[in-house]
Amino acid sequence: MKIALDAMGGDFAPAAAVHGAVWAARDFGVTVQLVGRPEAIQAELAKHQTAGLDLPIIAASEVIEMTEDPAAAVKNKKDSSMVVALRLVKNKESDAFVTAGNTGGALAASLFGLGRITGIKRPALSTIFPTIKDNGLTFLLDIGANTDVRPEFLVQFAIMGSHYAEYVLKIPNPRVALLSTGEEEKKGSILIKEVTPMLKETKLNFVGNVEGKDIPAGVADVIVTDGFTGNVYIKGVQGAAWAVQKMLEREIKARPLAILGALLARGAIKALKAKVDYREFGGGPLLGVNGVVVVAHGRSDPYAIRHAIRVAKQAAENNIIEAIGREFQDTVPVNGTAQVR
Amino acid sequence: MKIALDAMGGDFAPAAAVHGAVWAARDFGVTVQLVGRPEAIQAELAKHQTAGLDLPIIAASEVIEMTEDPAAAVKNKKDSSMVVALRLVKNKESDAFVTAGNTGGALAASLFGLGRITGIKRPALSTIFPTIKDNGLTFLLDIGANTDVRPEFLVQFAIMGSHYAEYVLKIPNPRVALLSTGEEEKKGSILIKEVTPMLKETKLNFVGNVEGKDIPAGVADVIVTDGFTGNVYIKGVQGAAWAVQKMLEREIKARPLAILGALLARGAIKALKAKVDYREFGGGPLLGVNGVVVVAHGRSDPYAIRHAIRVAKQAAENNIIEAIGREFQDTVPVNGTAQVR
Repeated sequence: MKIALDAMGGDFAPAAAVHGAVWAARDFGVTVQLVGRPEAIQAELAKHQTAGLDLPIIAASEVIEMTEDPAAAVKNKKDSSMVVALRLVKNKESDAFVTAGNTGGALAASLFGLGRITGIKRPALSTIFPTIKDNGLTFLLDIGANTDVRPEFLVQFAIMGSHYAEYVLKIPNPRVALLSTGEEEKKGSILIKEVTPMLKETKLNFVGNVEGKDIPAGVADVIVTDGFTGNVYIKGVQGAAWAVQKMLEREIKARPLAILGALLARGAIKALKAKVDYREFGGGPLLGVNGVVVVAHGRSDPYAIRHAIRVAKQAAENNIIEAIGREFQDTVPVNGTAQVR
Repeated sequence: MKIALDAMGGDFAPAAAVHGAVWAARDFGVTVQLVGRPEAIQAELAKHQTAGLDLPIIAASEVIEMTEDPAAAVKNKKDSSMVVALRLVKNKESDAFVTAGNTGGALAASLFGLGRITGIKRPALSTIFPTIKDNGLTFLLDIGANTDVRPEFLVQFAIMGSHYAEYVLKIPNPRVALLSTGEEEKKGSILIKEVTPMLKETKLNFVGNVEGKDIPAGVADVIVTDGFTGNVYIKGVQGAAWAVQKMLEREIKARPLAILGALLARGAIKALKAKVDYREFGGGPLLGVNGVVVVAHGRSDPYAIRHAIRVAKQAAENNIIEAIGREFQDTVPVNGTAQVR
């Protein structure tokens, strides 16, 4: 298993990327191809014990910066770490691509370098999300690749999400739900009212429409939404979790007994933090492009990079691309646009 | 100050409504007109000390149920508590209307009974939202009245929200922001990219686009969004706060020392809960209709009803309808549709 890592991508690259790669290579026994400026990568590698690990450096002289216009950057920077890494995936020299760089850049470079799976109209960014159930999780997409969608895109997101949940997350017969403003079918936007009956007609285990407040309760395994709503939702949840923590800290600091109490409850607080750790849930696979791509959070630290590499490994070894491809293989092009039968 | 309360509205009506009315009449010195079935209201009133309080009963024989189709219910139930209460406001026999009933019904009944403020295209549902700053709050709209919007609606929401923040919440020169998927203007949906330059051209203190994660940090006083996104956001935040609490409780219960710790930190936890209490933040004014209307959460308990009555009182005594009306008085009808110059 070979994973091509964008060693230059992310707010703390190349240090966090290289550190995460070393960690993942040791823990998961994978080869991590470090793509980027050799001297920068070499300098970071020298800080770690790498004996016995397979961490080849693949030279790429350019970097797509976080603030760059994605389409232009991908077009102009042919020797950027993203473009070079995706060429490895395209040529089957890598099994998957991982980046914590410019999300729009990753999306554009993946579309440019790998193309879409036949029949897929738009790729979707996804993430795993913890629920209150024991080891509970929900798979959410799209969280930002498509801010404006058509009904058929959401149906395809649902199918891709269901396959991911089944083949990679090993959830049998995954429950698929559509994010709306109420469970009732008469609620929601024009888009939602069009998509709901379409989802009912699929073979999916569609359990209906859900509200944002019910997602953490574990009402479904796959939550489908457009990229604008999904992005606002996921960031809203992150912000709320952060704010609750900040407010609690302030109230505790104002009370000496509570400070002692928090000390005694430290184990519980640590366990909670591990459960809602953005590093395990911040990034996820870009589904719909013709290869395994995992987009990690821009602020990824080494642990987050290690986790993203694990996600990429799981997606690749469970052949998610082939699973989605089989679903859409009967797709026929109509008037030049691919259409699902 | 007279507030017309839908005594039959909400999951726990009439008990919670009447109890909340008694509480509000005592604490805020307002007259609360209890609109609904007299015998049911009388039976609840008998459970409370009401000597010296002004709590007249206004008979209305029908109720718009939570599951009813709003438009049809308002049309057919002319003697429903909502329709009767709004007639009081229309006839200046009440200064404001408060309900915890069917939100769609409240919206339809308000439009039907009061009409819109001249120049306003769509009313918006709003809520106040706590931030991590000391007594910090943000005013968010729309949270559900309009699931599909046009750019000019959002501009009007921004103007109404700014006025509410200034006149009712007493925030000078309120900072107005647009909810998007990033601060950069090139991010967001087609709608967002159209609205951003329009907001820049207003006289508002527009501070730009914000992400959901930054709202609780207090980056703006007024957050503008469409009713679909706002509803998903607010419910997502509620769900996240609930889930964090549930997860922490579980981790604490698994650890004897943590149980003791939580006991010692009880004061801090209580203070936090008060800060994020949905009863203070779940409902809010419906802005844009020609009268003060406050829509409380369907699950409102007496404290939540009491709070909603306080919000209605503040909105009415600060003449928010007149303030918004002045802003839009120069509006001229174009092709039969009101248009803002």
